[in-house]
Amino acid sequence: MIQVDHALSIIAENISKMPVKKIKVGKSLGFILAEAIYSPIDMPPFRQSAMDGYAFVHSELSTFSVVSSSQAGDYSNLKLGLNEAIRIFTGAYVPDDANTVVMQEHTTATKDSIHIDKLPVPFSNVRNKGEQIEKGKLVLDKNTIITPAAIGFFACLGISEIKVYSKPKIAILVTGNELVKVGKKLPKGKIYESNSVMLEAALKEVGIKKTTIFRVKDNLKATSKMVESCLAHFDVILISGGISVGDYDFVKEALLQNGVEELFYKINQKPGKPLFFGKKEEKLVFALPGNPASSLTCFYVYALPALKKRLGFTDIHLPKMNRKITTNFQNNTGKTLFLKGFYDDDCVTVLESQSSAMLNTFAVANCFIYVPHTVVDIQENHEVQIIPFN
Amino acid sequence: MIQVDHALSIIAENISKMPVKKIKVGKSLGFILAEAIYSPIDMPPFRQSAMDGYAFVHSELSTFSVVSSSQAGDYSNLKLGLNEAIRIFTGAYVPDDANTVVMQEHTTATKDSIHIDKLPVPFSNVRNKGEQIEKGKLVLDKNTIITPAAIGFFACLGISEIKVYSKPKIAILVTGNELVKVGKKLPKGKIYESNSVMLEAALKEVGIKKTTIFRVKDNLKATSKMVESCLAHFDVILISGGISVGDYDFVKEALLQNGVEELFYKINQKPGKPLFFGKKEEKLVFALPGNPASSLTCFYVYALPALKKRLGFTDIHLPKMNRKITTNFQNNTGKTLFLKGFYDDDCVTVLESQSSAMLNTFAVANCFIYVPHTVVDIQENHEVQIIPFN
Repeated sequence: MIQVDHALSIIAENISKMPVKKIKVGKSLGFILAEAIYSPIDMPPFRQSAMDGYAFVHSELSTFSVVSSSQAGDYSNLKLGLNEAIRIFTGAYVPDDANTVVMQEHTTATKDSIHIDKLPVPFSNVRNKGEQIEKGKLVLDKNTIITPAAIGFFACLGISEIKVYSKPKIAILVTGNELVKVGKKLPKGKIYESNSVMLEAALKEVGIKKTTIFRVKDNLKATSKMVESCLAHFDVILISGGISVGDYDFVKEALLQNGVEELFYKINQKPGKPLFFGKKEEKLVFALPGNPASSLTCFYVYALPALKKRLGFTDIHLPKMNRKITTNFQNNTGKTLFLKGFYDDDCVTVLESQSSAMLNTFAVANCFIYVPHTVVDIQENHEVQIIPFN
Repeated sequence: MIQVDHALSIIAENISKMPVKKIKVGKSLGFILAEAIYSPIDMPPFRQSAMDGYAFVHSELSTFSVVSSSQAGDYSNLKLGLNEAIRIFTGAYVPDDANTVVMQEHTTATKDSIHIDKLPVPFSNVRNKGEQIEKGKLVLDKNTIITPAAIGFFACLGISEIKVYSKPKIAILVTGNELVKVGKKLPKGKIYESNSVMLEAALKEVGIKKTTIFRVKDNLKATSKMVESCLAHFDVILISGGISVGDYDFVKEALLQNGVEELFYKINQKPGKPLFFGKKEEKLVFALPGNPASSLTCFYVYALPALKKRLGFTDIHLPKMNRKITTNFQNNTGKTLFLKGFYDDDCVTVLESQSSAMLNTFAVANCFIYVPHTVVDIQENHEVQIIPFN
């Protein structure tokens, strides 16, 4: 049995990134960039007007003949005399001769000419070629998370494909003779199986949309065969249940039979003590406890950072914040606790009903309250660490 | 022109929720529950062992014949004599006669009998029927956000379908003669169109996966026709560009021609002043500025809360936090600023290059710094409000 921090450091040290693949920029939201991207163009690609107004050559003059007009998207590189201006709109090409744009609000226009009422300083309202980024300069570095703004930035530079770390193929393997699929009648002694859809949803939150769910009865041969098949076809296997020390818990033995190396088994925590983490080559296996609340706790605390590491995230740490706790709390277990809590801007409340079998509290919680195994007494109004969901 | 707060309150007051629809629980992640859900069963559905051990009738006795065995999923309701026990595993049915389970670690087993070394108190290690939730009791209330834990909770109660607020159908309408699709050659005077994929990605972040993108040239007739068609087929229209007062900005006129009621136009802010918000019946229209950074700012600050309201979220406010600013900052604009910033646990830094045309800063920022129009001088190390992305 190991401590929480030790388990988390084992995860951080033993996981490699997924292979790199090329994808369309429009499909890249949430991926991690696997290459540094350099700009293929100057942006703006030409000197652009930043205003609706008039482009001219800055001098002492304040009255100009308006000799032409340039709308965004137009290109005509007029020669402009000192006393000539062109009508120009935001985003339009500024003729090479012109060096300044005056905004229309600062002019008085007559039929074919304008008078500038408020002369701007030279070079005003002209965005220079390459002002946002020059051709060949770094756009975004390797390991950047791709956000909507990053997608927009790539697109405005004409970049249509990028290399990212691919997403792992994930199998969810559910064990337990007592489990019945939702939608069927519930015979006596059985319960509905809920961990598969729950874990599938939790994976969607980290951008892994496709998971394959398998079910297996509690016997060693079937479990071992299923593990063998999952190892052959998936990058990460999440197993639910069968990992305690009961006479019908065959998961650990099945994993070892298939050459999965144990990296840790059992953590000094509540809930979720009987958690197994192992790997075979680059393939990862988490055997999560079968109790729904334990299973989801172990997923968030251990499997999620592991998946983020595979996905290429640089920062895989649990996001911790401090809040004042609203009640006294005693931890007499000697274990690290992950309590379901509800926090707001100021404080955090320990929710009732912390049983590992029960999801009712989890469904209304918005954080874990993290109580290290070394802490016994927590006083009301003292700060505690919380791990917010999202 | 109105202030930021006024614009946000107009949004909060003028938007209705989407119609209700029934969906599968497994597909409901991120939706908002449109009905209160009551439990169709007791959970657990029967008295369940919380341990691997032995079930027996609590008395003075400490030695028992082991007469049978019950694995999770089994059902056999044995009559137990006072001196009889059954071998039982976590999650298994506890016979009606038995009232207590002793964990196996506290017993010494011989061939057909056990001795209890450490007698638990009566009723120990037995989860009562309905202990998690009783049949007919509230599972989750209307307007709850559906999380992985909520999905697990529904599933474990055998609930397969729920009513949620449906997602709006969204059209993105891009205007601008200067725009060229990514992948094509860039003629002089033109730039690549990036707002459509950027907004599409931003919509995905709020769980709206399907959007339809349209493009229209800068003329009134074409714009008006496109608006008419979008109003007929979509719930929300996001328009990019064409909303300033230039001679080639036709969006506002096209909207008014089609009976869209103006709820506000122009906000005293930077970037993103020329923002239009209107509606026709329940259909919403945001005409966003064409400059990419302005467009995305207006999306996050105004369109996202509006979409959350439509999706059924109760809390649509911008998520604000306080951080110490790392530099002095002057706001001489008289406008509310949304500066691109980067924050950590302690403080926030104003990033360089805040131009409304440029996405480079946005792509590395993780928050807006919110500077109200009334604030002129901000001192280094003083707290400012930030709006984190995500």
